[in-house]
Amino acid sequence: DSIWGVEHHFTDYTMCPDVLQFLSYMAGRTERINLGSMVVVLPWHDPLRVAEQVAMLDAMSGGRLILGLGRGAAKVEFDGFRLPMEESRPRFVESAAMVLRGLESGFCEQTGDFVTQPRVRIRPAPFKSFRGRTYAAAVSPESARIMAELGVGILIIPQKPWHEVAKELDAYRTMYREVNAAEAPAPIAAGWTFCDESADRAEAMARQYIGGYYQSVLEHYQFAGDHLAKTRGYEYYGKMTEKIAQYGTDKVIDFFLGLQVWGTPEQCYARIIDIRERVGNQAFVGVFSYAGMPYDEAERNMRLFARAVAPELRKLGDRAVTAGVTAERERPQADIALGF
Amino acid sequence: DSIWGVEHHFTDYTMCPDVLQFLSYMAGRTERINLGSMVVVLPWHDPLRVAEQVAMLDAMSGGRLILGLGRGAAKVEFDGFRLPMEESRPRFVESAAMVLRGLESGFCEQTGDFVTQPRVRIRPAPFKSFRGRTYAAAVSPESARIMAELGVGILIIPQKPWHEVAKELDAYRTMYREVNAAEAPAPIAAGWTFCDESADRAEAMARQYIGGYYQSVLEHYQFAGDHLAKTRGYEYYGKMTEKIAQYGTDKVIDFFLGLQVWGTPEQCYARIIDIRERVGNQAFVGVFSYAGMPYDEAERNMRLFARAVAPELRKLGDRAVTAGVTAERERPQADIALGF
Repeated sequence: DSIWGVEHHFTDYTMCPDVLQFLSYMAGRTERINLGSMVVVLPWHDPLRVAEQVAMLDAMSGGRLILGLGRGAAKVEFDGFRLPMEESRPRFVESAAMVLRGLESGFCEQTGDFVTQPRVRIRPAPFKSFRGRTYAAAVSPESARIMAELGVGILIIPQKPWHEVAKELDAYRTMYREVNAAEAPAPIAAGWTFCDESADRAEAMARQYIGGYYQSVLEHYQFAGDHLAKTRGYEYYGKMTEKIAQYGTDKVIDFFLGLQVWGTPEQCYARIIDIRERVGNQAFVGVFSYAGMPYDEAERNMRLFARAVAPELRKLGDRAVTAGVTAERERPQADIALGF
Repeated sequence: DSIWGVEHHFTDYTMCPDVLQFLSYMAGRTERINLGSMVVVLPWHDPLRVAEQVAMLDAMSGGRLILGLGRGAAKVEFDGFRLPMEESRPRFVESAAMVLRGLESGFCEQTGDFVTQPRVRIRPAPFKSFRGRTYAAAVSPESARIMAELGVGILIIPQKPWHEVAKELDAYRTMYREVNAAEAPAPIAAGWTFCDESADRAEAMARQYIGGYYQSVLEHYQFAGDHLAKTRGYEYYGKMTEKIAQYGTDKVIDFFLGLQVWGTPEQCYARIIDIRERVGNQAFVGVFSYAGMPYDEAERNMRLFARAVAPELRKLGDRAVTAGVTAERERPQADIALGF
């Protein structure tokens, strides 16, 4: 099992600005559970510090980190970090290459167009390889190719039809095989989750809160405007903007809702199995608290899932059955965090 | 009581590259103890991230952070972060001003020569003021003036004669009164500490390990060369280099040893009282593990101090009696960290 956290900044969208710091706190609170980052947004960081933080968290937690990386997509966050969004992909690639090499070799060094780092030692020294436990979010098809070249697994944050995800994964797996002369690691799939004994109540609550969450996605990523279509490297997001304009917000929210995991425990289980058959993920990360859901509801949601769904999933022998809760707005003491 | 950590990079000198991350782990391990940073080296950070990390740690720990800031002095670290040492002071001042304002107002914003930050919200929002619990290391006399202007307390990391420290504190207090129309907060003094039931053994061990530690200071800060004397903003350190050349390493180590806290519990207590009478500090931060001291020795050292010295200090009604242990070289799981 594992706890996951996200990285987001500046808006009410979702907590927390430093996922490796959050997971360090959770490393202190726990002894055995794995700790996943979904994701460290590399272009917003000095990648040298990411390598150091990763080495430190892994040392403090006894090697429990599952490292998830991403490149970010919200203009408000790139603006806050004084970075042009157009640079996010090459910055991500140069940063990821340096961090991943650094975690294997113990030294960071890079001469890139966006990242330059004279050779320095990572202290504490990484004591265990990150191969096989490093993943990256890939939303656009181009990203899947990049992740294959970096030799990392794929984090699926559901926002497009599962058959499209499956198709891109095929391309990624082929590419991965060519580049790395090995099979790609199984992906990890996340899903906004609402579990209730009553199917009707589950649907109503999913509609209210998963729908409400997607509303906050539209705001945080400014999907209403045309800036994404105009930003190099975000053409795929630009197409999403077009579809939202074409179908209207309500339809798009319905569509998003249809990708997620909600219903009775049996329905949730069946949905996860369906996803698994489509994309071959060996781990599922549920998001149980979002869009201002009351904490007791989020806790009930997660506990029911943990009691009635997770044990069944474990029987499949998957590598990890995972659970996350978004650290909510304005709440000073976050428990577990996960978001878009 | 409190646990303190340091920030250092790239060499064997001392652990840990991210003190706020380390303290986040300790926040998870503990419930009531305060958490002190000695220090966050602002010029090496994106100060926006420092403000975010501080707000997060304070939220996760329920307001237990004592914030210590500094500007750094080791060329190897400035080189690793691709920064000219000459810029450290103005970078520190602009960063500290932005971070401290941000923690009070909830927004970061700066238009400086070295730090530029468009206005963004700190999320999670700071929920408690940092006034009265923010300190900065001030080694050179110029720094004391800067800290008075920033309205922060002084962290004393003993490396010059206590009568000089006392004199500079007088100047700082006068300046603080003028600028802030209030009395300066009492400083916090640290000290390399070795406590043993036998006075002879304490001295021998102090000589070996505190001496050995100072040897690593000379190496990490490259006191042998003349680069400090030639670096703008580090003239005071340049003078230290001259003195080291003049007196020789052995004499300087003797001198450093004479500033620290070692001996029987009674001797340690008397030494701390002597320091307190000279500088009026209301908290003492002991460093109990350094220079490769075996862990069992470090633990014995700290436990004896905790049992036989700390309770006596608490009777003085000081605000905090504090304890730190350096996170040692090559040790993956650090407990408590403090260093130079």
